[in-house]
This record gives sequence, structure tokens and C-alpha cells, in this order.
Amino acid sequence: MGAATVTDTPHPFDPLSLDEIETAIAVVRKAHGIDLYFNVVALHEPRKAEMTAWLAAPESAPRPQRIADVVVIAPGNKVFDGLVTLDEPKIIKWELADGEQPIITMEELQLVEHIVRKDPKVIEQCVISGISVDDMDKVFCDPWTIGYDERFGSSVRLQQALMYYRPHIDTCQYQYPLDFCPIYDADKMEIIAIDIPEVRRPLSTAPAVDYHPAAVEARGGYRNNLKPINISQPEGVSFSVTGREIEWQNWKFHIGFSYREGIVLNNITFNDKGNVRPIFYRLSLAEMVVPYGNPEHPHQRKHALDQGEYGAGYMANSLSLGCDCKGAIHYLDAHFPTRNGQSRTIKNAICIHEEDAGILFKHTDFRDDSVIVTRGRKLIVQQIFTAANYEYVVAWVFHQDGTIQPEIKLTGILNTYAMNADEDTHGWGTQVFPGVNAHNHQHLFCLRVDANVDGPDNTVFVNDAVPGEAAVGSPENYYGNAFYSKRTKLATTGEAITDYNGATSRTWEICNPNKLNPYSKKPVSYKLVSREALTMLPKEGSLVWKRAAFARHAVHVTKYRDDQLWPAGRHVPQTSGEPSKGLPEWIGDGSESIDNTDVVLWHTFGVTHFPSPEDFPIMPAEPMTLLLRPRNFFAGNPVMDVPPSYASTPSQLLAQGSGVLDAADKISKLAFSNVNGSNGDSCCATDGNGNGVSNGH
Amino acid sequence: MGAATVTDTPHPFDPLSLDEIETAIAVVRKAHGIDLYFNVVALHEPRKAEMTAWLAAPESAPRPQRIADVVVIAPGNKVFDGLVTLDEPKIIKWELADGEQPIITMEELQLVEHIVRKDPKVIEQCVISGISVDDMDKVFCDPWTIGYDERFGSSVRLQQALMYYRPHIDTCQYQYPLDFCPIYDADKMEIIAIDIPEVRRPLSTAPAVDYHPAAVEARGGYRNNLKPINISQPEGVSFSVTGREIEWQNWKFHIGFSYREGIVLNNITFNDKGNVRPIFYRLSLAEMVVPYGNPEHPHQRKHALDQGEYGAGYMANSLSLGCDCKGAIHYLDAHFPTRNGQSRTIKNAICIHEEDAGILFKHTDFRDDSVIVTRGRKLIVQQIFTAANYEYVVAWVFHQDGTIQPEIKLTGILNTYAMNADEDTHGWGTQVFPGVNAHNHQHLFCLRVDANVDGPDNTVFVNDAVPGEAAVGSPENYYGNAFYSKRTKLATTGEAITDYNGATSRTWEICNPNKLNPYSKKPVSYKLVSREALTMLPKEGSLVWKRAAFARHAVHVTKYRDDQLWPAGRHVPQTSGEPSKGLPEWIGDGSESIDNTDVVLWHTFGVTHFPSPEDFPIMPAEPMTLLLRPRNFFAGNPVMDVPPSYASTPSQLLAQGSGVLDAADKISKLAFSNVNGSNGDSCCATDGNGNGVSNGH
Ligand SMILES: [Co+2]
Ligand SMILES: [Co+2]
Repeated sequence: MGAATVTDTPHPFDPLSLDEIETAIAVVRKAHGIDLYFNVVALHEPRKAEMTAWLAAPESAPRPQRIADVVVIAPGNKVFDGLVTLDEPKIIKWELADGEQPIITMEELQLVEHIVRKDPKVIEQCVISGISVDDMDKVFCDPWTIGYDERFGSSVRLQQALMYYRPHIDTCQYQYPLDFCPIYDADKMEIIAIDIPEVRRPLSTAPAVDYHPAAVEARGGYRNNLKPINISQPEGVSFSVTGREIEWQNWKFHIGFSYREGIVLNNITFNDKGNVRPIFYRLSLAEMVVPYGNPEHPHQRKHALDQGEYGAGYMANSLSLGCDCKGAIHYLDAHFPTRNGQSRTIKNAICIHEEDAGILFKHTDFRDDSVIVTRGRKLIVQQIFTAANYEYVVAWVFHQDGTIQPEIKLTGILNTYAMNADEDTHGWGTQVFPGVNAHNHQHLFCLRVDANVDGPDNTVFVNDAVPGEAAVGSPENYYGNAFYSKRTKLATTGEAITDYNGATSRTWEICNPNKLNPYSKKPVSYKLVSREALTMLPKEGSLVWKRAAFARHAVHVTKYRDDQLWPAGRHVPQTSGEPSKGLPEWIGDGSESIDNTDVVLWHTFGVTHFPSPEDFPIMPAEPMTLLLRPRNFFAGNPVMDVPPSYASTPSQLLAQGSGVLDAADKISKLAFSNVNGSNGDSCCATDGNGNGVSNGH
Repeated sequence: MGAATVTDTPHPFDPLSLDEIETAIAVVRKAHGIDLYFNVVALHEPRKAEMTAWLAAPESAPRPQRIADVVVIAPGNKVFDGLVTLDEPKIIKWELADGEQPIITMEELQLVEHIVRKDPKVIEQCVISGISVDDMDKVFCDPWTIGYDERFGSSVRLQQALMYYRPHIDTCQYQYPLDFCPIYDADKMEIIAIDIPEVRRPLSTAPAVDYHPAAVEARGGYRNNLKPINISQPEGVSFSVTGREIEWQNWKFHIGFSYREGIVLNNITFNDKGNVRPIFYRLSLAEMVVPYGNPEHPHQRKHALDQGEYGAGYMANSLSLGCDCKGAIHYLDAHFPTRNGQSRTIKNAICIHEEDAGILFKHTDFRDDSVIVTRGRKLIVQQIFTAANYEYVVAWVFHQDGTIQPEIKLTGILNTYAMNADEDTHGWGTQVFPGVNAHNHQHLFCLRVDANVDGPDNTVFVNDAVPGEAAVGSPENYYGNAFYSKRTKLATTGEAITDYNGATSRTWEICNPNKLNPYSKKPVSYKLVSREALTMLPKEGSLVWKRAAFARHAVHVTKYRDDQLWPAGRHVPQTSGEPSKGLPEWIGDGSESIDNTDVVLWHTFGVTHFPSPEDFPIMPAEPMTLLLRPRNFFAGNPVMDVPPSYASTPSQLLAQGSGVLDAADKISKLAFSNVNGSNGDSCCATDGNGNGVSNGH
């Protein structure tokens, strides 16, 4: 434990290295010229059949080839999808993706602001808003994909420029939104239209309330009453890393990183007393959509599918010790192409660390105060990405007891729009600051669970907690207290289109029907426990409903097929939703069997965000979480061998405490030394003499 | 900050001191004889009107009197409710509580096991189960209140003895449940009946799987790959304590402790830039019920109302440094009477400490990577209580941003019943170990929120996230994306009987309609965000439905009245539920107005627990949580003055980083020193030169 080994040969799940990216680019340039924009040069993931064979027998089965998935924009805005083998570099696929728009890179986004500032019609609108022509360097824009605008269709590559103003270079521009929206043509590199509202909203004149240090100092300064909390691991960490494979507390998995999904976890297994049991073949956040709820044109276009349109990998933050994580941290970098065919590195794109997780289990016998207390630990694999105004902190939390807990924190800044002093928001938004309307929105995430619960053949059930059917007073349920977990098999992809039911505390059970728990005789399973499931509020038939079909329901299940990774489709920008891409295509008429086969579960969860002034000018982090829990998977509590902090047994207490185990943390201290009536005796200092009056150990 | 002051005069909210308890007992004994059992000697809480006047003007208003609430059982099983003033000790109330059964003390519970072991009919049943008459010292029982059994009614004080066997003194007896259930008469101190099932289930012969250290060692020992995580506060803690009042990060509140509810938080205020704003007058877990779902007699009696029947205070654990909490801990003790009229102390019944809370807020500007990262902190006020087999870890978590997060972790041991090898559980339970049937159950908690949001006059609304009414394609909602938060006023106690709606992500808003947020113009409010709301599964008309009426719905709201503290009634053991006590009595016909007045919100939340083998023989902790969040309460983000870990602005980056704030934790370290491709530069080491390619700071 506690070692890191660098590997020479890439693991088949490894993201492309800088060398591999450069190799792929060189091959493509040689074949198709240097006048190409590289939107994607990324790992083309190994075919599952080949990969599974290799994982089962790495010595004898062929090692899956390294292949680059390449997307370029060639002159004339022609998009090509290519595949390049890397061992013996060659192009094995090169196809025109006619009328499709690939992911927008950070570099494409960066260009827009410079162009809007020089556009005469934009300058004219700025002046109308109250900005001096000499102050165009104070005009900023957040370029967004246009979503879909039927006036322009999909063939022209477009962005919409959400406009802001900074009275001072360090002022947060989201306090000064402008009311018009230029449309940018990425091919022509010019503004081709401006959406101007009927009711104009001049630039706000409210004084800024900034969050940067000088502004805080000017308002009276920082609070000075926080004492440091130090977290350290003097003997090192409890995990080991080989390449990008990590082992910790019976868990083993591979940590990939995709330009789209960010962290990708592969081949997640749990060592159950020597038996290495597969659980998930692949876990990721596969897509998301953030629909805004203001129906006034052109706000319907605000519904970013951030992963398919910009990429949670491309937008990843470079993380820092002691800022983003505390303790003993291991980092992994991310490598991507640049648009012009170079490569770039995001240092520390992923941070990995352990945290104390509070009490793992405890029990005191009330008769004699014999007790066991064992503290838990968690492993956190985390990234943060910035989507223009917003930040998403995405953590994959592993617990010792076999639970995996994806956790997302939302922070950053609200998307804002201008409003006049006397304006009615009509309930579609909230005035969070003078002149600032923050529109209602939802954050809907799609968790992709490529299940492998004790093997590839799995079945999904819904479990509903329901009362017994028999009436109160009947012989079967005389006192009316009967209740049980009703299991409903999702036998086909159509049946598997399911929603959350809060009234029955619904969970989804991914089980292996071929393997029963020795005691419960129920199939071994992992349960999806998600209370953050929610309804997508844009209506059936709405633009968002069409484009982000995955978000219509809490759960979809499909039969596994290679390359069905992204539920809103491969090329997401400017899809019309007619027909809907991704999941609806794969599900078709819903008749395909998903019983006892290789299945993928897609789960939509998230939060509906009605802004309030507390969220402004920067939002305190709001967390959401869900659980993937082993149920009937283990034959018993899998953490009984975690060393306890303290353990005493009845026989030891009868023997005046002889043999009691006291491994309590000796670093912990009393907060104050001057208070009577409190004491911080460690567990072992208590007599535990078995009378029923002195409570506790 | 960081100081503790002991006060001489008790605060009116303080629990009774040992002296006060002894004074009250002495007065009662003098008046009513020494042959009394003391079930309760506790603070009779100050009348709110008096208390509010004193809090507003402690120098001039009269200080509320100290009064003891006393419940005794006199000879002949006569129950008396009394009040004793303590300043000038005298009895001011003494009433016979005819036919009522007061809370059962730990001492009453302790007696039963000794009596069952000697009862000939119990011994007979043990022998039938396969236990030798010489092994009666290996027979154990968990005495429970009987709940309600119509054969015996309420006038005889009863317990039911759930029977177990320990083949070895240190073996967990829940692995060896016995199939019969003696009924104990507490007045006669004898067994008056035994419930014997038709189908007998002899003692299990399965070998034990224990969790105590010797058992773990015998199975191969503890894992040895966990490295210590040290948490320390070398400069002390960031909170200060005066008596039982605590101040931390703008919060101030009083920490009480009740024999029934455990931790009681009073007079919770937040200092909003110098303006001390009241939020809650009193917060507690006021009641709970754990109904079991097996309809077979006599399992319907298993539905402990643990707080009203045994007391979360009475069952509190004595907590230990480094075991139950890590870091720098402040403890508070609890004082109670003994049954025989002495006093006892639970040392360290409450622990108070701070924890790092991850990122409080972060934003990176994608243009130049100017960034701010600020870490958060939380304050945790925690207790643990053991209810026979189960433990409940109850934490009140305070966040810097004004959020209060009650959090409960369930651990301990499943309640178990015997089963035969070939027996069908009928879905009412799970075989978690050979011969061990763990029945389905729910843990339903009642959070009592005595609201005081910017003053006593509050109104409660439900907020539902719903689509706009207008159809897709209509001018008002052309693209179909409209959605909003629908507010529905709960004007009367009848209207306020509401359930959770997962489809609308329902929240409850406790607002002060007399005070509007300056920007949003919406009433200042605290929102109850609870995704762990659930349906009580015992049916309408069932025994549990009648006895634990508070759990029928997610939310009830009542008008404040002194002494309406406990929603299942004052004396809970052996209530028949005909009529239902507590909330239904207070709500009556539901016509009372609760609009713009002093209101109390009662929220039922919890979890439905279908056991699985992972939970046995001891359960890994399962957490549940909810939030009380300020919405439209503050004029802006209330934590902007928390010192950041790192902050850079555009102007600083243009000036080559001059003036950048780097206060990153210098204790944090890289996990490994030997890995290329990773680095742990602190934030300040990055150039941040404003190009769009190098991401992050
Ligand atoms: Co949001
Ligand atoms: Co439970």
C-alpha cells in the first residue's frame, strides 16, 4: 500500500498520451493536409468483447489495439469522423459527418469575445445600452452553443454570445448583463445576427458587490475567527496506484479521463475475501443538460448540454493542493489536442485522496456497556469543471462497505440577464441583485452505469416499498402493519423507461439473476438509491425535450453495444431533436429484451434551481448525491475486519477491562482545557463496570 | 473565539443541574413519601411569552423561573405528573395521570432479563427451543415497551421481552433469536403471559460470525493497510462557549438536552452584518417510530416510539475522543434522576466539533484563469443513542452559509427473529444469516421546527417545481421550456397536512410575510429541503397509524402553544391510539389559521429498511439528511468574507501575478513523491498568463 508505479505500456483503458495524440495528428495531417481544426483526438475505447477477453487472460488474449478517435473540421466547415490506429499508425476510418456539428472547443469559445467587441452592430447595441464606444474593452461575452435555432438550422456552425459589461477589470461581469444576443458564425468568424428584445433594458448603474479580496477588504475585510484545521497522513496514504489503476480497501479500478465525460471509471472490482468480483464495467457522467425556464425568446436557447457541447474534460480545472482538496493528494493530468494540431496538458485534472468518514459502525450493549466503535474511511476521485459561469465539482466517492457514491457540488456564478427596475419577472426568474434577473433552471445529469454485477448478464428491477395488500382487520394483516418491497422486472427496454416514485421510496436493483446470496437467496445486486431524481420540466414536445431525450425519465436501460456512450448522441451541438439522438434511437420500439444480458442503466438526476439572492454574486456550493449500494451482494458485513477504535466485550468487562482494545486516535484533543464538567478521557479510561446506570463506554 | 466560559446562574434553557434534580426530588419525597419511582425530573421549559420577553431585555424583563417537570410512579402503579419550582422549592402541580404509562427508564428495562431467566414458564419454553435448563444465564432479552396489546390494555404497566441466546458470553445474541415472547408486568415484576407461535423455530445451530476482535482475529485478522489520518487544530477551535450557548461563524444558539428528545437547540440566531436575526426558537427531533412490517402476531407490537417510550436522552452514549469524533472536541454532560431518587450523569453526552467542509465556493474565469477558491467549514453538534439493538447517530450540522443540516446515521444491529431452514419469509423479512429473519421496518423521525424567521409571525408555503401552464407552440410558451416555482399557502392547520411530491421536487417554505428580501421582493424564508420524506407504510386504521399519527404525513403545521412538544403525546407507552394523541388533538378540525402567526412545523422523514445480509451481524452506518436553507433571507451570499485559499484577479494576472492572494493550506502534501507527470504546486506556482489553452490556476 501507499506506492505509485509508473507503467511503460499504456493500459487499454488509458486516455491517449501526448505522444499518441501527436502521432494521430501527424497521420491525419499527412493524409488530409495541415489546414484542419482538431476538435477531438481521444481514445477510441476498446471493443468490450476484446477487452473482456484480455482482462480475463492478459497473458494469452490479444491486447486491444490503441486507436484514436479523431474529429476534425476541414475547410468549408466540413466535419470528418476518423479512426487512427496508433501501434502501426494509420487511418482506418474517415467519414464526412454531413450537417453535424462537433463539440465546441475552449479555443473556439475564446475567439468570439474578440470578434463581438469589433462588430459595428454589436457596438451600436452597446451604445444603445449606455456603454461608451471607447469602453468596448469592458464588454464581455460568454459564448454558448446556440442550442438549436430553427432560423439557422444545423449546417452553419454557430454560437450565441451572452453579453456582459465590466465597469472595472476585476468586477464580476454577471452583475451587468446586457439585453441583446449576437449570433456568431464560426466558419465566417463574424456576427451574423443580433437578437434584440422588444423591451430594452439599459446597463445597470447599481454599484458592484464583488467577491474578490480588494472588494471584501473595502467592505470591512475578512472574518478573522477561523482557526486552521490540519489534515495529514504522516505514514502516507492507504491506496496504491499502478499507472491509472488504483487499489484501495478491496476496491480496484481504472481511472480514465474523457474530453466529454471527464472522469471515467472502468473495470471496478471488489476483492471479497480473495474473490475478485466485478461490479461495474464502466461508470461516468455521460451527459447533462441545463434547461432554463424563461420562455421569452431567445432564452429557450439556454439549455447547455455541457458535456456533449463543450466537454467536462475540456473544461476541467487544474487542481491545487490545499485549495481544492486537503490532506495527502495524488493527481492525474489530462492531455488533449489543441485546435491547431498541437497538444496541451491540464495538470492535476483529477485529484485522489482519502478522508475520514465518521463512524463506520458502532454498537453498545445496554446491559454492560460493552462496545465496539469503528471509524470509516472514504476514497474520493474528483474533478472540477468550469462551464462559463458555473462550476461543477464531481466526486466519485468509494466507501469501504462496497458503496459507490457519485456526488456533485454546484458552485460558481448564476447565468444572469438584464432587468429593469420595475420589471415583472413573471416567476421565470428572480431579481438577485438590482438589475439582475437570474432565470429558473435545472441541472440534469445522466449517470451511465455499465453494469457487471458478478458478470455481464444482469437484469434490472424496480423496488417499491408498499403496504401489504390485505385489509386492516383481515387475518393476513390484522393490525395493518404489513409492508414489503415489491420487485418489478424491467424485461424490455420499453418497460425500463421508468420514473422516480417518492411515495414508494423507489430504488432500482441491478442484479445478477444467475447468482443468489447464500442466506437471503435473493440475486446478488447493486441498488441505485437516488432521491435527487427529478422531472424534466420543459414539456413533452419542447425543444429541450426533443434534444435531451435522456432527461425525460429517471431511468432507461439498454442492451450494451460498443460506442453507445453518449445518450444525446455523438455530435450534440445544433441537433434539432428531430429525430432525437442517442437513447431514443437505441431504444427504438422498446421491444428489445434486457433480461439476463449485458445491460447499461442510464439515470437522470439533479436539481431544479430557483435562484435567490443568497446565490449571488457567487454561489455557496450546493451538493447532491446518490448511492450505488451492494444489497444481497455480500454474505455479510464486508467491513468487520476494519480495525476498531475501541472494542470491549462482556468477558473483558467482567475481568476489569483486561484485554480491551483501545486504538483510539491519540491526536484528537479537548477543545478547551478550562471547563469543569467536561472531560475527554479516551475510551479506555472509563470503568465500564456493567451497571445499568453509567451509560456509554 | 476559542474560549469557554462557565456560568454561575443557569440559563433558562439549561437542562436541570444535578443540584436542581436533587432539590426537586427532595421536595417531592418530603411531600409524597420516599416510596416513589422517579421516571422524569427534567426542565419544565420556560413559557415562550416570558422567555421571549427576557431574551429581548434580559436586564429588565423578569428571568423565567426554574421549574422541574416531574413524573413519578407511586405504589399501586399510580402515575403522577408534577411541577416543582426550584428557586423557592415547592410543588406547584401534582396530578394523577390515570391510566397513563410514563416513559420507561433504562433501569426498568434492565430488570426484565433477570426475571425472565427465573420464570418457570420461560425456562420451559427455552427447553422446548433446545436450551439446557443449566444454560439460562445464556438467555438474554431485549425488553421493549409492549406498544399496545388489546388483551392487556393500558392500565397495567407492561414490557415485552424479545428473547435471544448467547452460546458464548461474547457472542452477539441477535444471531440466536428465540421464537417466543414473554410479557412482563412491571408492577408485579413477573411474567404474566408468553406469546408462543404455532410454528415452532428451534434454536439455531449455525456457528457464530461475531464482530468482536477475537472473532475477527480467528477469521484471519484485521486489515493492516489503513494509514492514519490525523486531524488537528493547533490554534484551537473557532467556536466559543458560554455555559451552553455557542457562537460560531455568525451563528449563536443554546444547546439543551432533554431526556426524551436528546439535543434541543434553542434561540438560533444568525448575525447578518451586525443585525442579529432570529431563525428558529427551538429545533429538535421530537419523536420517532420504527414500525416493523411482519403482520404475524405478535410482531405488530414491534413499533417502538423510541423517544416517547425510552428517551433519546436517557439512552445517550457517553462519547469518547478519537472514537466517536476526531479533531478538537468540546463535550457537554447530561444529568438525569435515577429511578430510586438519586441522580446520575452521562459524561460527554454531546460532542461539538468543527470539520472542513470542502469547497465553499469557487469560480474560474475561462478567459484568463483568474480564480477564487474558498474552503468551507461546518460545526457539528452530535449525540448517539442506543435503542436496544440499534444505534442512532444524530448530528446537527451548521454551515457557514446559513444552512442547518440535521443528519442521522443508522448503525448497530438488526432486530431479528428466528426462522427455520426451509421457511418462507413471505417477503416480510430477509434471511440475513442462517436461522435469522430480519423483518422489514421503517425508521420515521419527526423533526420539530419552532420557527422564528425574522420574528415569530411566519407562514408556511409548499413550493412545487412545475411546467408553465401554456402549451408548447403557444405564444406564451412557444418552445415549451417555461417552468416556475408554484407557491401554495398553507393557511390553516388542515391545509398544512401535506405529503412529499418527488415529481415536483416539493419543498416547504417557512417565511416571514412581513419582511421582503430587498432584491427579490420575496418574503425572507427558510426552506425545508427533504428528499428523505417517505410514506408510512402501515395502513390507515392500523395500530401504528393510530398511535404514531405524526408519521401519517410529511408535514403538519400547528400554531405554537406551550407544552405541545411531543407529537405522539406526553405519555406514550401503551397508548391505544383511540383517540390518537398529540398532533391530531392539536389540529382538531383543521380550521385554525396558521397564517402570519407563531407556527411550528413537524416534518416526518426517514428510511424504509429492507434488511440484507450486508447489514449483519452489525450494520455499516447508513446516513440520511435534510436541509433547512435560507432562501431570500440574505441580501446576498453571506460567506464572501470567509478568507479564500487562493484568489487572483484579471488585473493581478496582467501584472504577472503581483498581489495574488495565496493562503493555501501548507500542510497538505502529495501522496507520492516518485511519480512523473503529477505535481502538487500550490496555486501560486502557476503562471496564469491568460491564454485560453492552459486551464486552471
Ligand atoms: Co443552478
Ligand atoms: Co433499520
